[in-house]
Amino acid sequence: MGYMGKILKVNLSDGTVKTEKIDMDIARKYLGGKGYAVRIFYDYLQRYKKEGISPRDINPFGEENVLIFATGPATGIVGFPKSGRYHVMALRSPLTGSIASANSGGRWGPFLKFAGFDMIVIEGKSEEPVYLEVLDGHAEIKCAKSIWGMNVFDTERTLKERVGERCSVACIGPAGENLVYFANIMNDEHRAAGRTGVGAVMGSKKLKAIVVGGNERPQPAKPDEFDEVSKEAMNKIKKNPVTGEGLPKYGTAILVNVINNAGILPFKNWQTGVNPEADKISGETLAEKYLIKNKSCWGCAIGCGRVTAVKQGCFQILYSEGPEYESIWALGNSTGVMQLDAVIKANHLCDELGLDTISMGSTIACAMELVEKGYIPEELLEGVDLRFGNAAAMVEMIWRTAYKSGFGKYLALGSKRLAEMFGAPELSMSVKGLELPAYDPRGAKGIGLTYATANRGGCHVTGYTISPEILGLPEKIDSLTIEGKAQWVKTFQDFTCVVNSTVNCLFSTFALGAEDYAKLLSAVTGWNLTTEEVMKIGERIYNLERLIINEYGFNGKDDTLPKRLLQEPMPEGPAKGHVVELDKMKEEYYKLRGWVDGKPTPEKLKELDIP
Amino acid sequence: MGYMGKILKVNLSDGTVKTEKIDMDIARKYLGGKGYAVRIFYDYLQRYKKEGISPRDINPFGEENVLIFATGPATGIVGFPKSGRYHVMALRSPLTGSIASANSGGRWGPFLKFAGFDMIVIEGKSEEPVYLEVLDGHAEIKCAKSIWGMNVFDTERTLKERVGERCSVACIGPAGENLVYFANIMNDEHRAAGRTGVGAVMGSKKLKAIVVGGNERPQPAKPDEFDEVSKEAMNKIKKNPVTGEGLPKYGTAILVNVINNAGILPFKNWQTGVNPEADKISGETLAEKYLIKNKSCWGCAIGCGRVTAVKQGCFQILYSEGPEYESIWALGNSTGVMQLDAVIKANHLCDELGLDTISMGSTIACAMELVEKGYIPEELLEGVDLRFGNAAAMVEMIWRTAYKSGFGKYLALGSKRLAEMFGAPELSMSVKGLELPAYDPRGAKGIGLTYATANRGGCHVTGYTISPEILGLPEKIDSLTIEGKAQWVKTFQDFTCVVNSTVNCLFSTFALGAEDYAKLLSAVTGWNLTTEEVMKIGERIYNLERLIINEYGFNGKDDTLPKRLLQEPMPEGPAKGHVVELDKMKEEYYKLRGWVDGKPTPEKLKELDIP
Repeated sequence: MGYMGKILKVNLSDGTVKTEKIDMDIARKYLGGKGYAVRIFYDYLQRYKKEGISPRDINPFGEENVLIFATGPATGIVGFPKSGRYHVMALRSPLTGSIASANSGGRWGPFLKFAGFDMIVIEGKSEEPVYLEVLDGHAEIKCAKSIWGMNVFDTERTLKERVGERCSVACIGPAGENLVYFANIMNDEHRAAGRTGVGAVMGSKKLKAIVVGGNERPQPAKPDEFDEVSKEAMNKIKKNPVTGEGLPKYGTAILVNVINNAGILPFKNWQTGVNPEADKISGETLAEKYLIKNKSCWGCAIGCGRVTAVKQGCFQILYSEGPEYESIWALGNSTGVMQLDAVIKANHLCDELGLDTISMGSTIACAMELVEKGYIPEELLEGVDLRFGNAAAMVEMIWRTAYKSGFGKYLALGSKRLAEMFGAPELSMSVKGLELPAYDPRGAKGIGLTYATANRGGCHVTGYTISPEILGLPEKIDSLTIEGKAQWVKTFQDFTCVVNSTVNCLFSTFALGAEDYAKLLSAVTGWNLTTEEVMKIGERIYNLERLIINEYGFNGKDDTLPKRLLQEPMPEGPAKGHVVELDKMKEEYYKLRGWVDGKPTPEKLKELDIP
Repeated sequence: MGYMGKILKVNLSDGTVKTEKIDMDIARKYLGGKGYAVRIFYDYLQRYKKEGISPRDINPFGEENVLIFATGPATGIVGFPKSGRYHVMALRSPLTGSIASANSGGRWGPFLKFAGFDMIVIEGKSEEPVYLEVLDGHAEIKCAKSIWGMNVFDTERTLKERVGERCSVACIGPAGENLVYFANIMNDEHRAAGRTGVGAVMGSKKLKAIVVGGNERPQPAKPDEFDEVSKEAMNKIKKNPVTGEGLPKYGTAILVNVINNAGILPFKNWQTGVNPEADKISGETLAEKYLIKNKSCWGCAIGCGRVTAVKQGCFQILYSEGPEYESIWALGNSTGVMQLDAVIKANHLCDELGLDTISMGSTIACAMELVEKGYIPEELLEGVDLRFGNAAAMVEMIWRTAYKSGFGKYLALGSKRLAEMFGAPELSMSVKGLELPAYDPRGAKGIGLTYATANRGGCHVTGYTISPEILGLPEKIDSLTIEGKAQWVKTFQDFTCVVNSTVNCLFSTFALGAEDYAKLLSAVTGWNLTTEEVMKIGERIYNLERLIINEYGFNGKDDTLPKRLLQEPMPEGPAKGHVVELDKMKEEYYKLRGWVDGKPTPEKLKELDIP
């Protein structure tokens, strides 16, 4: 019934590996993926408190941090549209001090289930580099000395030479080993569990990789019913303009021109939202000049992934994947680098070294503004001309960051610490320390509220209100008003928790709503979930996650935005003159959520049956 | 009398630091610098043998390896022309398995004497990263955890922030830390003790840096006599066409066109000696397009150093030094990269990361030929198009090598192991594992004999017969004949031992001969050395060094050249049709040396008063 029924628990401090059963009561209330992981974290916090360890004292790089790789009931089910993903979470992020959370495609998620497990919980930390091999129900901690130091592609190739092709590898690159605060976990070469530095947590545990594979297969509880709802869902995805045409044809990069035309494509560290040259780095230009072919994650018919190459010049790379919209924006538009070849190379290096493209590009852009405004002593740049638009400097900063070499050691801390360190904290475009993604909320107010209230920090994929505000899905709403945005954000946040706990691809939600999810999940689990129940599960997960970050000290004052977005009116374009009127939206949002000062009330918790 | 009289002995295994007196009997026979270090090594080998450790079992990265930083009686003496250098040696090189030996300018050498010491002997290895501070006669081992991982410039800047500007720093970069077999020790930013991987030995000892400085000053024994001979020597240097005009005006890069015109500038991994495009990377072009100003080592009036910048483009670097002739050749001509901006950037990265430019460029060139001939599986290159002439690929391979990332982990082993590993050992242009420098001996036979017989492996600066063969100094001899070359090589090798033990800059020898050295050294030490005695000292050093490498197993068969130089006639240019007739020269050379099968005879050793 969707689940494999087993959680693999690995303690790297004492080298033990054991199997626990999935608790079906928890699954019924939190599904899997992110939801189940958050529930496990909550138990850890209670245990730590009993042991006298305050949540605020949890060191992201300490033995006490916990890393969870989680699939959900949908993962790896043939016919569940776009269910090739997994979710990874850490109790605490080195970048934000909040909960760490990231999601990745490829095939690693399904392959974990094929190995016989729904989740892996990693406790403690190893003295020496190790990797974990989980094959056909059997798990083993192995020595990783010979692969420590390797880049992502090398690591994967080397482990596959040992294990064979019928496995999938998730690993960290040098950035994770070197504890860069926004290091990724990478899988299947170019797939990234980016954001919030889960790769650095993995690095701190000296865990280089997890190899998964096997011959087990998850099955839906009600195969006939599932066949029917699966066909229906697949059909909706095919007919939807975004999932049926836009994403297959241009990938996520289709958004570059769309978002720039809406006047909210942040340019040069968010100094404006309009870039007259944006087409130089658009999805259309990518398709015309650099695309080789499309590529799909496991079991996905959309195939929004891009295989690309830069055949000649300084930024040559003969085989790469991506870049996605967010990466193009962060490494290109935000840094003012209007060269798609440089962006492709930069994106490739981020994948190879294991770095989050959004945080990397945004931190470079922040540094460029710091340089432009004279905050950075010249000698620290060691001869690199780190100014907006300098493609070579942008690319060079990536490997410098991964290895913390020269100025890279400052960039490796992320934009918040960087900007603080050099005396201009307002130039970090981040929320709770997490660099913001590619939509200026001065021209799409809902996403501003999402950024401000996201539990993991400045995040677009826990409540992607760009969909109604700009793309018109499921319906077009006014992007410049704050009216009704609180409800949209709450609904999207709750629903996204369902998606990330199912675990499924967020892109499914352009075509599928909570009703579809209720039907699909019911057929897979056999539980007959209603739409309301599904949304309640989502709300429960969001609130429990919030409860955890409250324990770390986050409250209403942290649900905010950079000053630039609150006080500096957008200088031009469709959103000219606008700022984000956050306070009003937040007030309404807290009311809808049943929160006070960013904290769930006891009543709300009781209503959601949170312990 | 030239010496400070003290040797600092540091044991990194037990953390002890002690001072020993210079043994003046040894100094009289071996001067200082290289000579004295070789004499110390000989004692270590005898001790190890007594302890049951065979010289052949000495692990270059083991506790048993010994690293010596040595100045000589001339170092830091005001008025001794070009005496701003120091010599560094290790008992065994990771690259060659022979003795490791390198020499560097800047000001570190004099500053070691100003700190009160002639030499530092480093034994053992530390568990944790450390650095050594030697200030005003006092030495201390300090924690280097916070600087471990830093690049060369960062390390120097950070240590100077602690100690103040009145010091000099010698350190390793990431390449040394990561045990790249041809890692340098760098000092005063861009000055390199390159060749034979002394930086990797320092890295294996977890010794990040040595800071030196102080207020002591060495003095000549006979100041009035010294004043006179000093003036005379300075005058000769000023009048000499190379030291008085060529080097000050164009630096060493003046040689690019000169050597190319002679038809012996190795192109594309030594496939030919003529490159019609060489002027693109010549000293003249460097001066025209990239030079900012000249720069001198301590106490040198020549100022052959170049301060350069690439102001824009992909290879931008706003401040750099060099590149020297050898670096331009290795990184540019040998790799077929005819872009001086890329070569400047590559040279800069080698300095920053602590890599030997000759071995780095040559190993890349070797890889390029391996790629061209199909020896390297494509997937190992990870999308980098490593073919001759690809500037971006060449530059990228440098940081990949320093961090052993991707294909860089193979390059980090040097060309000999690389070529062997991929099945084409004949494509490594090296002798005893050390990559050859920038003169094709098919058109300058003497330098071929120098390469073959150099104790540290393929080396041009232990017997620079290019001086008479090509430059016509002290007289022009026929470069294409083998007649008389054995004598030239022997004389130059012996004399160079004197220079490296004095310690002085090799460039002084364009203008000064053994007679001048005898006068200068006599005035400094007070010993009244004759020209014959000086040359005997040189011969003694060369033979003792040879005795040591014999102990490692090197014999006559290792005194050879790559097959390409012995069997493939030069395809074009002034040396067209020539190979190196090595055997004949070697026979004559061994006879002159009093060696059999590359080994000094007991009679010869007795004659030289070697124990």
